[in-house]
Amino acid sequence: MSRFLSRHVRGLEPYVPGEQPLDRQYIKLNTNECPYPPAPGIVRLLAEHTGQEFALYPDPEAKELRGAIARRYGLAAEKVFVGNGSDEVLAFLCMAFFDGGDPIYFPDPSYGFYEVYANLFGLKARPIPLAKDFSIKEEDYLELDGHILLANPNAPTGLALSRCKIEGILKGNPHHLVVVDEAYVDFAGEDVTSLPLLSDYDNLMIVGTFSKSRSLAGLRLGYAFSRPEHIAALERIKYSFHPYNVNRFTQQAGVIAVEDDAYMGHVLEKIIATRDRTSLRLRELGCRVLPSSTNFLFMAHPSLTGRELYQKLREKGILVRCFEHPRTLDFVRVSIGTDEEIKAFLRAVEETL
Amino acid sequence: MSRFLSRHVRGLEPYVPGEQPLDRQYIKLNTNECPYPPAPGIVRLLAEHTGQEFALYPDPEAKELRGAIARRYGLAAEKVFVGNGSDEVLAFLCMAFFDGGDPIYFPDPSYGFYEVYANLFGLKARPIPLAKDFSIKEEDYLELDGHILLANPNAPTGLALSRCKIEGILKGNPHHLVVVDEAYVDFAGEDVTSLPLLSDYDNLMIVGTFSKSRSLAGLRLGYAFSRPEHIAALERIKYSFHPYNVNRFTQQAGVIAVEDDAYMGHVLEKIIATRDRTSLRLRELGCRVLPSSTNFLFMAHPSLTGRELYQKLREKGILVRCFEHPRTLDFVRVSIGTDEEIKAFLRAVEETL
Repeated sequence: MSRFLSRHVRGLEPYVPGEQPLDRQYIKLNTNECPYPPAPGIVRLLAEHTGQEFALYPDPEAKELRGAIARRYGLAAEKVFVGNGSDEVLAFLCMAFFDGGDPIYFPDPSYGFYEVYANLFGLKARPIPLAKDFSIKEEDYLELDGHILLANPNAPTGLALSRCKIEGILKGNPHHLVVVDEAYVDFAGEDVTSLPLLSDYDNLMIVGTFSKSRSLAGLRLGYAFSRPEHIAALERIKYSFHPYNVNRFTQQAGVIAVEDDAYMGHVLEKIIATRDRTSLRLRELGCRVLPSSTNFLFMAHPSLTGRELYQKLREKGILVRCFEHPRTLDFVRVSIGTDEEIKAFLRAVEETL
Repeated sequence: MSRFLSRHVRGLEPYVPGEQPLDRQYIKLNTNECPYPPAPGIVRLLAEHTGQEFALYPDPEAKELRGAIARRYGLAAEKVFVGNGSDEVLAFLCMAFFDGGDPIYFPDPSYGFYEVYANLFGLKARPIPLAKDFSIKEEDYLELDGHILLANPNAPTGLALSRCKIEGILKGNPHHLVVVDEAYVDFAGEDVTSLPLLSDYDNLMIVGTFSKSRSLAGLRLGYAFSRPEHIAALERIKYSFHPYNVNRFTQQAGVIAVEDDAYMGHVLEKIIATRDRTSLRLRELGCRVLPSSTNFLFMAHPSLTGRELYQKLREKGILVRCFEHPRTLDFVRVSIGTDEEIKAFLRAVEETL
């Protein structure tokens, strides 16, 4: 261990990303990536790009990209922040809005990074256990004495909270920021996104990503929507941390991706159809599968623990994710791949029965 | 101002990046970018890229890129960290090694971000004034009671400290980390980089960037070299902040750029020749020009303040950078452009005389 490591950092428990083993070719259903390529315009961008302008810093304001995202979502550009993936956006908002010692509430289990951020930034983590059926109960989130981080749909459960319940939480916490992390919202129904609430609630911040429905996990692009004064606070952190956070190529690819909604619609349709078919089949096989509003399934095998199923599938060349959390020991999280990948996965599950 | 802004952030003074005005076409000599395009292999990378893999997360360990950088600099890959620009590397190392309230020493003036980081991370900024001739005096940096951030060559002065003086500072501070920010080192002579000291001093961390000599400011790539245990500390922060910090395309382009030393040599030769010629000519015109070990000149006009010269050049379509610091009010910083750009700049200076 470095003899210069700061006292605070010694106690950190960093996030563990999904494994990327190189020992053999795997069917990767463990990091909720999109199995389909990005919008076809990005192939044209590559073909026509001379690379000359890579010598110049990117626009620190990312004006074109923010403009394109703003148009797509019917917002003013001042309500849009972009980051080097939504993890950076989440880290920046922790720095902008939370002081050391502040309590931060989030569902438990949920995206593992919320607790990591609480530790990194010296906040008091206040995990709120999910209900017995793994749902988030609106009534557990009313009149809290701290800010709230809420993944909707939630991970790794895949369950969504309707917009009217989010509205109840916003109303119930007028003096605190409610951050709704909508990484998977495009895979949920129309009544899940909190976007229509933005104009009415000045304590709402929505976080999103191009890594899932827009097939750009490799280029790193995340965003936040909120009132201009809250977006300005994120910019303040950005200009105190690194002003050129989103590189030129990602800014260009992001414009193309967000403007091609027809392509995203096509991708969503395929993933949702595969997901719902897979869910049905797993239930027929006797597995427990939570209703998914995402691009993954949260499932329990009738006779194996999550770790056992993970291990058996891994031996057959299929990677899924299992968890250490006591509430989810029975489960694995399976990203929806192509039909062919899912066929191989289902065959492998059948062999374990 | 956001009503949720944290108390700490209210007092921050963010960094102000070089302006990027869009009102007309400017000759941009204000952000120390490289006037020549990146290595030709990057054009081939673009042409042959299908973009399919952008749907997948980048390798969080950036194994290929770190391997290529390590080979180029004769290091083990465990001694190499990569970040989304060297600003991110600097921010991460502040988080990894400095606890709130720690004193941090750096030259004054130097890269403006050191003070910004001190404020952002709650450190005690301890600026050490440059000598009258703008040089860094080794004797001012001995037996300090805090860690040290040292740009070598320094900005905005362009002056370099020889390796043996850096060694003196390393010896004089065995219980503290000495970070040497070598953003401009490729433009200095062979006896400036601290790289040969890495094996002997476990309190040395070198920071570098692909934004200057490798023409990749637009793609964002920075790095740190140090003992494996210090690199592991940076990784610890990365995995607590955002594990996928360097995107796929930048990782690929970085490998190509670092492996093409012949091309970089060619670019360096041109820039250094232009720099030295420009420096001579400015002196002939009666300007004061500090001897530059970088890709920029730090110069004072015989009769105009820095701001006045900046303003006059701006009116003629040429952007340079002036400063608010009381020590540098007479100066502007001029990035070395192509011969044609510099010809236009010199003509504009002549017109002001």
